[in-house]
Amino acid sequence: MGVTCNYLEVTTTTYPIPPERGVIWKGDTLIDGVPQTLEMLRSKGKKLVFVTNNSMKSRKQYAHKFQSLGIQVTEEEIFSSSFAAAMYLKVNEFPPEKKVYVIGGEGIIEELKLAGFTGIGGPEDGKKTVQLKANTLFEHDKSVGAVVVGIDQYINYYKLQYGTLCIRENPGCIFIATNRDATGNMTDLQEWPGAGCMVAAICGSTQKEPIVVGKPSTFLMDFLQKK
Amino acid sequence: MGVTCNYLEVTTTTYPIPPERGVIWKGDTLIDGVPQTLEMLRSKGKKLVFVTNNSMKSRKQYAHKFQSLGIQVTEEEIFSSSFAAAMYLKVNEFPPEKKVYVIGGEGIIEELKLAGFTGIGGPEDGKKTVQLKANTLFEHDKSVGAVVVGIDQYINYYKLQYGTLCIRENPGCIFIATNRDATGNMTDLQEWPGAGCMVAAICGSTQKEPIVVGKPSTFLMDFLQKK
Repeated sequence: MGVTCNYLEVTTTTYPIPPERGVIWKGDTLIDGVPQTLEMLRSKGKKLVFVTNNSMKSRKQYAHKFQSLGIQVTEEEIFSSSFAAAMYLKVNEFPPEKKVYVIGGEGIIEELKLAGFTGIGGPEDGKKTVQLKANTLFEHDKSVGAVVVGIDQYINYYKLQYGTLCIRENPGCIFIATNRDATGNMTDLQEWPGAGCMVAAICGSTQKEPIVVGKPSTFLMDFLQKK
Repeated sequence: MGVTCNYLEVTTTTYPIPPERGVIWKGDTLIDGVPQTLEMLRSKGKKLVFVTNNSMKSRKQYAHKFQSLGIQVTEEEIFSSSFAAAMYLKVNEFPPEKKVYVIGGEGIIEELKLAGFTGIGGPEDGKKTVQLKANTLFEHDKSVGAVVVGIDQYINYYKLQYGTLCIRENPGCIFIATNRDATGNMTDLQEWPGAGCMVAAICGSTQKEPIVVGKPSTFLMDFLQKK
């Protein structure tokens, strides 16, 4: 995928003192001095954590991206908001027999799977359309217990209706946002609507507010600290 | 089109005393007693105004719908939020040489045209997709001076980016919402995400609030009263 991300940051573990942060890449280009800085930090025995609000990729996919840029980073050092969503469900003992409806990218589906959960929707629903006719009844899975919303370049009316019905009609269904960033750097030259756009759409149709798991929420940092 | 609307109301002109209101149809079925009630009101010399937040159709299209249900209503008696958007621009002397980007249905494009404005986007952009690659630059028309957002069953990332860029980058570009209803009765059996969903999405990506021209804003009633 040609999707880029210039929000991936390295964070050193000085929390709760504000951690040192720096952006790693822009598009497919490393920021100047990054390899040397990371090497220096490692040589001093610092524990590095790489954090991104971009939920389109899984940690595994981000590790590959690091490798493609010539930097050795392990999956365990990466904390994406897709992983955060899965960990939020894990920490809060979400019943694994329930399903999770995803508005967002493959990264969320993959992280849910790794955490033992069943994600439905996501890229699979990207080309689905709705037929609005008299007596049309849009069916949704009553076993969905959570809806996770992240940045979604294939957002459509089908997904909006699906997520809305789960949140509105499935008792106790949780509404999770990977983050609420207004924009994301999906390409090198300009900003694009971020997860905050899709999340707001679901807020608009459900009249509910989400649990935010990515930055700037504290879930992520609290989770990292406990680890 | 099989699209239905059960929000279309008849309003008698007793404003500013709260007007009498009643829903006319559900789906393609008239509410019991409506033809008799309308006849009775007309026989008493009441001025009738038919109001809907649904912007998918133009007044002309709504007049046809009335006729198909056996009721004689003229275009001039109908006040849809698509018409309200066009009238807002007219009343506020929007320069006709500027364009209006539309996220929503044909009704908005048609009402803009009747008011002497050029609407772009709308249904035409319903099947457009975006290719996210390094160096992709999404171009938008710099002469767009207003973005009108209504209910849009063909909402996509292309439209969200287009509307967002106009509002964010075109100096003085106005952001108009037909209404902010969370849901709309697009089919007989259930509710669907309403204009409030698409409007919220654009609020999320632009971090701006719209001017609302449909119910419950006062623009509509003020305009009716002046007429």
